[in-house]
Amino acid sequence: MVKIISAKWILPSTEERPFKHGFLVIDRDKIIDLGSKEEILPKYPNSEVIDLGNKIIFPGLVNAHTHVPMSIFRGIAEDLPLMVWLKEYIFPIEAKLREEWVYWGTKLSLIEMIKSGIAIFCDMYLFEKEVIRAVEESGLKALVGEGIFDFPSPSYGPLERGFELTEELLKNFEKHPQIKIAVSPHTLYTCSPETVKRCIKLSEKYNAKLHIHLCETKEEIEEVKKRYGKRPVEILKELGGINENLIAVHCVKLNFEEIELMAKLSAKIVHCPESNLKLGSGIAPLTEMLRAGIKVGLGTDGPASNNDLDIFSEMRTASLIQKGIKEDPTVIKSEDVLKMATFWGAEILGFSESGKLLPGYKADLAVLDLSHYSLQPDYNPLALLVYSAKNGFVSDLMIEGKWIMRDYKILTINEEEVIEKVKKIKKEILSLLF
Amino acid sequence: MVKIISAKWILPSTEERPFKHGFLVIDRDKIIDLGSKEEILPKYPNSEVIDLGNKIIFPGLVNAHTHVPMSIFRGIAEDLPLMVWLKEYIFPIEAKLREEWVYWGTKLSLIEMIKSGIAIFCDMYLFEKEVIRAVEESGLKALVGEGIFDFPSPSYGPLERGFELTEELLKNFEKHPQIKIAVSPHTLYTCSPETVKRCIKLSEKYNAKLHIHLCETKEEIEEVKKRYGKRPVEILKELGGINENLIAVHCVKLNFEEIELMAKLSAKIVHCPESNLKLGSGIAPLTEMLRAGIKVGLGTDGPASNNDLDIFSEMRTASLIQKGIKEDPTVIKSEDVLKMATFWGAEILGFSESGKLLPGYKADLAVLDLSHYSLQPDYNPLALLVYSAKNGFVSDLMIEGKWIMRDYKILTINEEEVIEKVKKIKKEILSLLF
Repeated sequence: MVKIISAKWILPSTEERPFKHGFLVIDRDKIIDLGSKEEILPKYPNSEVIDLGNKIIFPGLVNAHTHVPMSIFRGIAEDLPLMVWLKEYIFPIEAKLREEWVYWGTKLSLIEMIKSGIAIFCDMYLFEKEVIRAVEESGLKALVGEGIFDFPSPSYGPLERGFELTEELLKNFEKHPQIKIAVSPHTLYTCSPETVKRCIKLSEKYNAKLHIHLCETKEEIEEVKKRYGKRPVEILKELGGINENLIAVHCVKLNFEEIELMAKLSAKIVHCPESNLKLGSGIAPLTEMLRAGIKVGLGTDGPASNNDLDIFSEMRTASLIQKGIKEDPTVIKSEDVLKMATFWGAEILGFSESGKLLPGYKADLAVLDLSHYSLQPDYNPLALLVYSAKNGFVSDLMIEGKWIMRDYKILTINEEEVIEKVKKIKKEILSLLF
Repeated sequence: MVKIISAKWILPSTEERPFKHGFLVIDRDKIIDLGSKEEILPKYPNSEVIDLGNKIIFPGLVNAHTHVPMSIFRGIAEDLPLMVWLKEYIFPIEAKLREEWVYWGTKLSLIEMIKSGIAIFCDMYLFEKEVIRAVEESGLKALVGEGIFDFPSPSYGPLERGFELTEELLKNFEKHPQIKIAVSPHTLYTCSPETVKRCIKLSEKYNAKLHIHLCETKEEIEEVKKRYGKRPVEILKELGGINENLIAVHCVKLNFEEIELMAKLSAKIVHCPESNLKLGSGIAPLTEMLRAGIKVGLGTDGPASNNDLDIFSEMRTASLIQKGIKEDPTVIKSEDVLKMATFWGAEILGFSESGKLLPGYKADLAVLDLSHYSLQPDYNPLALLVYSAKNGFVSDLMIEGKWIMRDYKILTINEEEVIEKVKKIKKEILSLLF
């Protein structure tokens, strides 16, 4: 038995025109048809038809890089140099990190992502088994990986155990519908070339994604050059890590040759514009990356350095910054950033059946409520999504045919319980930190 | 009889520490006291005490530059060069502008501004009497001015009538508590130096603000130099227009000497970071303006080129962009942008009794709801306001001691009626435009 949903607008993908009064047919986890009322209703008699009314149905968004458990640190330290922020606040408290904090911090972030229309995300942090547990309960989909670095990890301990844990996850989740595992070396300044090489081998063995922070700051490049006499991209290339499975995050400081190289080798990039600005890293050469033909996703980065998990806001910021620095409002368009936040993001994370509302794709969709005062009038549904919508304007979220949020009510998470738990965790953190 | 309100946090101004469990005493339109429960309650027995609970009370925000009626054009044309946007879409439809559209467009914007915690704003547009009518009904405060330019206006007709209308408004609203009138020459490329000179004289006669778009784009500077052989600031200086009553909007293309001059002559600047990015104008030298000692306000600019009226978002963007382009997260701090959006903004618009929650100031305040999922945890109320709060997270707004919004319900505007009217206006606009 199929489900049919309709609304004032359906945005099937950024390559199709917005469909006015469209009807979308869903069979279990997949979209099987899309058309007008006259085309659809006679073909599927006796089906459940849900008319969402004055809304826009669009592909569920993709947050292609974050550290979800860090929501418990949101606002703990602000307007500081990155190294002071890390060394005086984040590292001391992460040294005492508890599995329970990771679980509830993830839940808090899942609430915010669901309310922002995010269906799929990519995470790198510590105690990722707790992240996985929360994601499985929530109904969202994720590519996750335990952060690997040479110094002992607050979660798994010595490096060797990090590889064992990652391989254990790779095996356990090899055919999981909801969870995929990435091999996640942290950076080229926290992992030696030998460690990164082992990560690359492991990702090749399982045909898994290699998820790494790359060329985020000028300090990173200087540090890596000082140690090895080469820029990070050159090292990664020599190790064989630049290929279609690479998810290189940030890439603020890529030069022209490096952009060309990444394009030629089909590597993927995740752009986190707000985090790059807020931490003072700079502005990534997004226009140049797109012109070179690189598939770029959008990420919020961790909520402690953003300070939210709102992909609408990242789409808007990504577009606005490029227009501003190029002094050209045509240089990047709403459809470009929406593509980054939907099917490019999904493909980059290995969920290539998601990100479009077309027959054959997964029924991963979000619903924007056009009755909102700041979404008036509705000349242009695409512009409303990219330039006016915000965290909290999404009324419904469906993933693989199942409602995760319905009429603003999250069905898979008890919001009040999460907020109460996070209040307790805040007190524990403060008592340990000060 | 006084009113006492309290909440988990009160932010009296950016120069005081956030006050935990503070109590604010309001007598009619003014704040008369602020202190702890023990200090306040015995001093004012038998008073009404409202405990707002888990919230932050902060000074009502100031949107120091916008064109509120343009909400009816939101999204009508996107990602276009400024001149195409203006000449093919905005000017043709403005030529047919109706007073009724201005009134309802203003109402729509007022809803959004109230929900964003804005108490005071500054407007320049056409048919400003309709803007004034809507503002008076809403309870907000505004500095408004009819846009003056050499070519015939769709509202008042020939230039001469613009001066008459402005003078009539200046007289009628000279002692109005809620409405102030600015003399508003549009720009130095739409007004001749003679017209600007007359505007300056008129503003001097009434000790009124002079509100002008200045150095927004490189094209503006080129055009003005072509016509007069000088840069806009030089012309304005020679005309005697650079002084403490000047509100110069945008100033994206100010050079070092011009920044020094504006500082020396106590001129005020309004920074509209998102509009400047979105229209491809560039990034204003905010850090340099602040270092030079200029008082700078924050504006959204019109909702058709932003596409919202959210000052939280402008604070965040203003801070993030400076950190990003300077590659220094300490270059501008949360308190700097909050000051711009509160008491500096208020002072720039001539409402210098607003913008702080201290005894002697007007009771203009907004309330941020900390129960929101994306405002967890609350280590730092200032960071939550600037980096995490958004349009829609404000539960209450009070202006001069009167509640304008209470527990998310706007008391002075019928939201549904406005949205219905704007839907009709959209149809009228489309029928005239295409």
